[in-house]
Amino acid sequence: KTYRIAVIPGDGIGKEVVPAAMEVLDKAAQLDGRFQFEWTTFLWGCDYYLETGKMMPDDGIEILKGYDQIFLGAVGMPSLVPDHVSLWGLLIKIRRDMKQSINVRPAKLLQGLPSPLRNPNGFDFVVVRENSEGEYAESGGRIHSGQDEVAIQNAIFTRKGTERAMRYAFDMAKTRRQHVTSATKSNGLTYSMPFWDEVFAEVGRDYEDIGQVSNHIDALAAFLVMKPENFDVIVASNLFGDILTDLGGAIMGSIGIAPAANLNIEREYPSMFEPVHGSAPDIAGKGIANPLGQIWTGKMMLDFLGYPELGAKILDAMEATLAQGVKTGDLGGEATLRQVTDAILQQLQ
Amino acid sequence: KTYRIAVIPGDGIGKEVVPAAMEVLDKAAQLDGRFQFEWTTFLWGCDYYLETGKMMPDDGIEILKGYDQIFLGAVGMPSLVPDHVSLWGLLIKIRRDMKQSINVRPAKLLQGLPSPLRNPNGFDFVVVRENSEGEYAESGGRIHSGQDEVAIQNAIFTRKGTERAMRYAFDMAKTRRQHVTSATKSNGLTYSMPFWDEVFAEVGRDYEDIGQVSNHIDALAAFLVMKPENFDVIVASNLFGDILTDLGGAIMGSIGIAPAANLNIEREYPSMFEPVHGSAPDIAGKGIANPLGQIWTGKMMLDFLGYPELGAKILDAMEATLAQGVKTGDLGGEATLRQVTDAILQQLQ
Ligand SMILES: CC(C)[C@H](C(=O)O)[C@@H](O)C(=O)O
Ligand SMILES: CC(C)[C@H](C(=O)O)[C@@H](O)C(=O)O
Repeated sequence: KTYRIAVIPGDGIGKEVVPAAMEVLDKAAQLDGRFQFEWTTFLWGCDYYLETGKMMPDDGIEILKGYDQIFLGAVGMPSLVPDHVSLWGLLIKIRRDMKQSINVRPAKLLQGLPSPLRNPNGFDFVVVRENSEGEYAESGGRIHSGQDEVAIQNAIFTRKGTERAMRYAFDMAKTRRQHVTSATKSNGLTYSMPFWDEVFAEVGRDYEDIGQVSNHIDALAAFLVMKPENFDVIVASNLFGDILTDLGGAIMGSIGIAPAANLNIEREYPSMFEPVHGSAPDIAGKGIANPLGQIWTGKMMLDFLGYPELGAKILDAMEATLAQGVKTGDLGGEATLRQVTDAILQQLQ
Repeated sequence: KTYRIAVIPGDGIGKEVVPAAMEVLDKAAQLDGRFQFEWTTFLWGCDYYLETGKMMPDDGIEILKGYDQIFLGAVGMPSLVPDHVSLWGLLIKIRRDMKQSINVRPAKLLQGLPSPLRNPNGFDFVVVRENSEGEYAESGGRIHSGQDEVAIQNAIFTRKGTERAMRYAFDMAKTRRQHVTSATKSNGLTYSMPFWDEVFAEVGRDYEDIGQVSNHIDALAAFLVMKPENFDVIVASNLFGDILTDLGGAIMGSIGIAPAANLNIEREYPSMFEPVHGSAPDIAGKGIANPLGQIWTGKMMLDFLGYPELGAKILDAMEATLAQGVKTGDLGGEATLRQVTDAILQQLQ
């Protein structure tokens, strides 16, 4: 079986870590023997924008629809292209147009990667983030100017979008430690979040054997620092999920290694796999970028394609490499991108 | 000089920690000699609600306006009174009706209180939270039902409210380490937060000597875990401030000790001082509640009344008590509320 993958390395270190992750994925496929990857690379992003005035061609979305999945590096070059242009013209556009309505981000204490927490207690949780609406609805406006100006931002939660995220979280909990925490703030946001709570309670009734609890986002953020081991699956709105997943990266010891999957769970269009880290223009092109986030992202693609055992082997190889002390500078090591990639390839054997 | 203080112990442990903090404040006033407190206690809250159907009397706000400041314990008894009733009927009602448009919450690594962070590096920052509008605007609604239901929550940012919070933050930075960080999310919330950023840039031009930087809320939450020592004053919207201050409590080692001030900076109406912790009904009435949050809250009231040196002495006495190991159970100690209070009174001498 051949999977046709659209590759968008994007900007900065994306151009370096994406090829490294492709090597690891090819190796995994070869060891497995059941399938192979066919990669097609698209050089879209900020350089493309500086040449053409667009982040991707007008028919970019149509082109991408012809592939099985999308493997993305990093987007952004803030000194030359404003963030709202680069993000809304590529990353968020693909999330929206491909109806990638679920964003999944794991956080796990890895052997060999020191957490900033004193007692991180082997945490291992996944945040399921609603990825299509809510606070990111792109609805709002401004009125008046100067001293009288008012800005309004509307968060829009639909039953369908909310329920979809919750069912996905409960289904995931079935395959894990049987527990879902809902991130709410119904004591402060008195329209959207009581609705969110009602849908959570209602969907939860279909999953009687799964533990279920709601925490306010403020308390939940604090709990991720105080007792992250208490969480299994967390379901959160677009904005709350964004905040909780960066916190997840922080307690792992680096936001540079966290992966993300933007899923079209109906499999009507391709899903997109992208690391949480940015394009890090300051270290781009030096061969010292950390490939772990991109490689872990590749593992999530393997999971979604239906090869979770193979995905687990990649995570094991990453941990073994970290435990050996083969790390890039951002993790306190001295290894290059090439050395880390080679060590992982070796561990995979 | 006599300060007339309206005291609302509220619910649960509020009834125990408020009298303890009053003892400490009386002692501080007596040692200082320049002023005294006249306390008037109002037994409003959930018990009052269960008797009367209201969290406070109809003329409660008018009554409170006759006092210099308000000293609040904790509000909430979720098993008997829904949170939206207790909070919006008392805590948030007072914040709104008294135009307490600035919420100030410090976070500081205290000697004797172990942080969950491995290297907390002596952080000491203050979050200035916009407290009157933004995401808490109480604007929104729902349409349709069942599978078609949609909930909308509108965040409303005015120029006046936004600018007021930012000026307050910059003015505070002048008395501290000369640096303000603005919590934004203009890459995702494309109406409210670009406006927030513009006002920050504009106000910042009046404070050229103060360092100023914007961080997205997701990255900022992660930074509070990774390098909290980098922050001095953080200015944030109502919701972002809520999240960041609980995180501040978490990295201090306990959300049970964090204080808060809800300020009417125009001094047209009383301000309200309340700890961040809740009413902890499970341990209420046992004499084991931790009074440090309430006492630190009292210190903030002294600061606002114009006695910052005296306030500093209270914080010193708290730290000395912690360093002696006199701590309540929530902090891993065995001391009672009485013992902690006595130790602080002793240190104050
Ligand atoms: C209780 C709740 C409404 C409140 C808030 O979000 O403002 C609390 O979390 C706080 O921070 O004082
Ligand atoms: C870049 C930004 C718009 C984006 C988001 O908030 O979704 C990022 O923080 C992420 O989490 O992928």
